[in-house]
Amino acid sequence: MTRVRIDLFTSLDGYTSTTNHAPDNPMGEDWGRLTTAHIGTRTFRKRVFGDTTGAGTTGIDDSYTASFFEGVGAEIMGATMFGLHTFPDDPDWKGWWGDQPPFGVPVYVLTHTAPRPSIPMQGGTTFHFRSGAIEDVLAEATQAAGGLDVRVGGGVGTARDFLRAGLVDELHLMVAPILLGRGNRLWDDLAGLDLTHKVTSEVSESGTIHVTFAR
Amino acid sequence: MTRVRIDLFTSLDGYTSTTNHAPDNPMGEDWGRLTTAHIGTRTFRKRVFGDTTGAGTTGIDDSYTASFFEGVGAEIMGATMFGLHTFPDDPDWKGWWGDQPPFGVPVYVLTHTAPRPSIPMQGGTTFHFRSGAIEDVLAEATQAAGGLDVRVGGGVGTARDFLRAGLVDELHLMVAPILLGRGNRLWDDLAGLDLTHKVTSEVSESGTIHVTFAR
Repeated sequence: MTRVRIDLFTSLDGYTSTTNHAPDNPMGEDWGRLTTAHIGTRTFRKRVFGDTTGAGTTGIDDSYTASFFEGVGAEIMGATMFGLHTFPDDPDWKGWWGDQPPFGVPVYVLTHTAPRPSIPMQGGTTFHFRSGAIEDVLAEATQAAGGLDVRVGGGVGTARDFLRAGLVDELHLMVAPILLGRGNRLWDDLAGLDLTHKVTSEVSESGTIHVTFAR
Repeated sequence: MTRVRIDLFTSLDGYTSTTNHAPDNPMGEDWGRLTTAHIGTRTFRKRVFGDTTGAGTTGIDDSYTASFFEGVGAEIMGATMFGLHTFPDDPDWKGWWGDQPPFGVPVYVLTHTAPRPSIPMQGGTTFHFRSGAIEDVLAEATQAAGGLDVRVGGGVGTARDFLRAGLVDELHLMVAPILLGRGNRLWDDLAGLDLTHKVTSEVSESGTIHVTFAR
């Protein structure tokens, strides 16, 4: 059965993304510090960078990163994550991920601007643009996933919309052992999630705290 | 050598204490949920409740609770934690802990109101009231500790004063796997603590995440 999954990076002080976003630094400052453990895993290096040398960490972080990529049949993301707000006037913008994005599945981009035609990419990714209610987009993504999971990929605003609407079966947080002191706050408006979901935590070799809320 | 230690309870969303404090509920609502794991340990039950039946949890939480009570030669706390703000007009107020408080060491209560005479209690605790700078009170407490550690017991405002002043060698957080969504926020103004202190984390059988910042 399809599960709706979210994976997010956060600091110990609860900031999920960072400040000073810019076209040449779309994730903002400090993003590298939040994602060090994930990006350093063998699975990420192989899957995203095409690194087949076997470099990268193994262990608990790598196990979560492998799960991150497994069993996802469709993805949903916000317009900001895709880059529509950074490049609003470029009808040919195809996202940040090059000709062969790492998704490999249909990706539904939420947007309130004029609809764009779908963009098929190499490697199985097709970007679709949808302006409907998130419940409707989720229904379409669930059908496209064919029994696999649907991931809400981000950004944090989109993730929180789905969480607040009670649509998420599993939230996995990668809590980096750092304090950012600024950025977007994850936790506002999410009280009660611990009552509807079971919380489990595990600390990896890198000091990352993996916290999972599962329905 | 004396180390300055702080132990705090926090929720996953970073709230260290709760709302609706009242004379008959001095720690506020939700405090019980924050402290369940600590209070449920065999060591806490024996040390604070005098329970010698062996009841209570063992394991990782109990190990941290045992460390909590070990090696402390003096304690510092804020006026609110002692109860001065709840009972400002009672010159005979002796704190929340009965005739034999669980500290067993000199306790320095920070206050800006008129000085009070020290109060010797049963079991080795003496309450002293000090209105000087926190650095001066810490120097006095350090001398009284005789080579043992000084604990800054709370509340969170007092703890943050010492943390911001760079006076704390070890901060131990007991992060309960719950979301409170309200209360006093731990993390404001503490960015940078991860640069001066090494961060390590461990998850206990109860799901509590023990995070330690150590100089």
